[in-house]
Amino acid sequence: MTSVSAVLEAYARLAVRIGVNLQPGQRLAVNAMLVHAPLARAVAAEAYAAGASYVDVYYSDPHVRRAHIEAAPSETLGWSPPWRVERLERLGEDRGALLAIVGDPEPLLFADLDAQRVSSARMRQLTETSHRITDGPVNWSIVAYPSEGWAQTVFGEPDVDRLWEAIAVATRLDEPDPVAAWHEHLERLGQRSDALNASRFDAIRYRGPGTDILVGLHPDGRWFSARESSTGGVPFVANMPTEEVFTSPDARRADGTVAATYPLALQGNIIRGLRMRFEGGRAVEVHADEGEEFMRAYVASDDGAARLGELALVDRESRVGRTGIVFYETLFDENATSHIAIGYGFVQALPGAEGLSEEERHARGLNFSSLHTDFMIGSPEVDVWGVAASGTEVPILSGGDWVLPLAREKAA
Amino acid sequence: MTSVSAVLEAYARLAVRIGVNLQPGQRLAVNAMLVHAPLARAVAAEAYAAGASYVDVYYSDPHVRRAHIEAAPSETLGWSPPWRVERLERLGEDRGALLAIVGDPEPLLFADLDAQRVSSARMRQLTETSHRITDGPVNWSIVAYPSEGWAQTVFGEPDVDRLWEAIAVATRLDEPDPVAAWHEHLERLGQRSDALNASRFDAIRYRGPGTDILVGLHPDGRWFSARESSTGGVPFVANMPTEEVFTSPDARRADGTVAATYPLALQGNIIRGLRMRFEGGRAVEVHADEGEEFMRAYVASDDGAARLGELALVDRESRVGRTGIVFYETLFDENATSHIAIGYGFVQALPGAEGLSEEERHARGLNFSSLHTDFMIGSPEVDVWGVAASGTEVPILSGGDWVLPLAREKAA
Repeated sequence: MTSVSAVLEAYARLAVRIGVNLQPGQRLAVNAMLVHAPLARAVAAEAYAAGASYVDVYYSDPHVRRAHIEAAPSETLGWSPPWRVERLERLGEDRGALLAIVGDPEPLLFADLDAQRVSSARMRQLTETSHRITDGPVNWSIVAYPSEGWAQTVFGEPDVDRLWEAIAVATRLDEPDPVAAWHEHLERLGQRSDALNASRFDAIRYRGPGTDILVGLHPDGRWFSARESSTGGVPFVANMPTEEVFTSPDARRADGTVAATYPLALQGNIIRGLRMRFEGGRAVEVHADEGEEFMRAYVASDDGAARLGELALVDRESRVGRTGIVFYETLFDENATSHIAIGYGFVQALPGAEGLSEEERHARGLNFSSLHTDFMIGSPEVDVWGVAASGTEVPILSGGDWVLPLAREKAA
Repeated sequence: MTSVSAVLEAYARLAVRIGVNLQPGQRLAVNAMLVHAPLARAVAAEAYAAGASYVDVYYSDPHVRRAHIEAAPSETLGWSPPWRVERLERLGEDRGALLAIVGDPEPLLFADLDAQRVSSARMRQLTETSHRITDGPVNWSIVAYPSEGWAQTVFGEPDVDRLWEAIAVATRLDEPDPVAAWHEHLERLGQRSDALNASRFDAIRYRGPGTDILVGLHPDGRWFSARESSTGGVPFVANMPTEEVFTSPDARRADGTVAATYPLALQGNIIRGLRMRFEGGRAVEVHADEGEEFMRAYVASDDGAARLGELALVDRESRVGRTGIVFYETLFDENATSHIAIGYGFVQALPGAEGLSEEERHARGLNFSSLHTDFMIGSPEVDVWGVAASGTEVPILSGGDWVLPLAREKAA
């Protein structure tokens, strides 16, 4: 690696040109934490160079949020400031672009607060607006920025350089031509989602230590990768890194148990040893070695919070997984191994789902919730099968390896 | 002084309880720069303790702004994001409170940029909305937060402790009971504005090295201090520190020259050796030893930018002046010595001016502009007189001392 500023510029370029794929004349909204300022600034410069009409950075401060959770009147705990909702709505109307920067320097900041208040303090209206525009007119991406606090969480010491190196590997910044490497990588993920779509499985089965679950798919459902397109036709890469192919399952069909294989950093808490049991699509038991009380309140947040909104498959060739690092950051950990998510399901996964009301979504088994939270259940010990309507099981991931034949391989 | 956190808490208390005077159930909006986060957080905690319904902190990043000024399309240079305007409008509608935190860690950040673009890059709509709500339903205040960058500018070394000590003196944090000291101080300033109001001067004359100007007052104009009241009846202290009594003059009547006695830090530039000549209320010449090009563009920003919106009197007993420090921060420097401001005039200075249109304000000689910028013209060498309609001159400040008799002294 060369200087930090050169890496930062290359990373900002990847985020703006490949991730968001900012178009000339578009407005770019950036959501960041204070500690992400160096990347936000590099992104602003890169975005203007790419022809942005305006770059609007909103910095959130989890310490201000902590003061709110501690002492605000309970009726304002979940309040979404209307101007923040308006900001996203206007971005949608004007077909702008959105970049979220993540990487929490203090993932345990809320762990000592009242679990019920922490869970209630989510800005639902803002999250729902965010889902709506990212499902629609806005091209968007999520990237992470390494800080001393985050490095401390990951390595037990504030070794930011080491975290930069891991991020460079995971995001292909270490390649001679990162942009070309990304195009090739996205092509490969596209072949996997094509293979899954061609297979038309009725359900997916995961089986491993503590995990044995069957999750139903929509007959007309679609698998895809993070290479998406806005409704305005702008292609983008929603996550950097990304190693997954994913879909939204039938929210009414999940039966069995799952055991998380990674810790989950979520809203100022770290959940360890998470185990859930599903019946008829719904989580009926939630246990954890740490953070259980918070997680139970979280899963009870709204009707869709206890149902699945995503199934995602990641093999052990994943660049993130190969670092061997637990990042305590979902953007990375979800791309290390297979995962599922409770909450909001993607409209892109179900043809004709765009613009459905909450009730219509429920009727079609596409989950609706103000939250969408991935957690990791994959490992080389967890095998995954596609289950045909006939009951036949076809291996997809075996010992962590991708074994479902790809179209190109079939043809060969 | 005790620990930094104890000082920070005491300072936040002063800002919330005396400055803004937050009322239970009010929403508090805080405008800060990234570097002000420690104070913003202390203010959030104090505001919730005082019964805030919600504390909404907006952090601005001058480096993102720099990228904007450097490379944004020129037609978006002065664009105000509608959600930021909406944020202030809602605050007004809901009769909320506003705290601005200032103290620029990099006051020369824009000095190498194109002066015309820097001047054009002001968010006029946002500033006008801000003027409207702070002239009306919102109780508000401005405080400063010391950073290494600011200390470097002031002392030539990043001695934040020394800056804290100066701020503690200026804001009476060094008093055994800062709240009581503030009440006593505000009472004294009130006596000065009462004396000026009782005198019913027709004009004010300033005379000293490089300065010889006569500025007309409104026959029914009012002098006041930073102890103001919102239209909702909440008293507040608009600036901390504050040492001034001030009014808005007749914007059509200013003739003569002024020479700034302090440098002026403004929009990423420092203007040194500023000299202006006024004719018929309008600045017809603008010179400066440094920053002249920027200042000329700035004064040409809009029609009211070249006319006066404020006259303010500060004697040499000022706590800020007594520190002997040039702060390169208007909140402090304007309270070290007498000053005037170009731009927006205060509706409180002219009975019946609330709700006047821009045209009606012009017709009544109350200046209107998207900017309001103070600059210091006072010193012990600059004497100030009140000029009666008869032409009689009555000394107000002589050798830096306040010499206009106060009501209580008259009675004695």
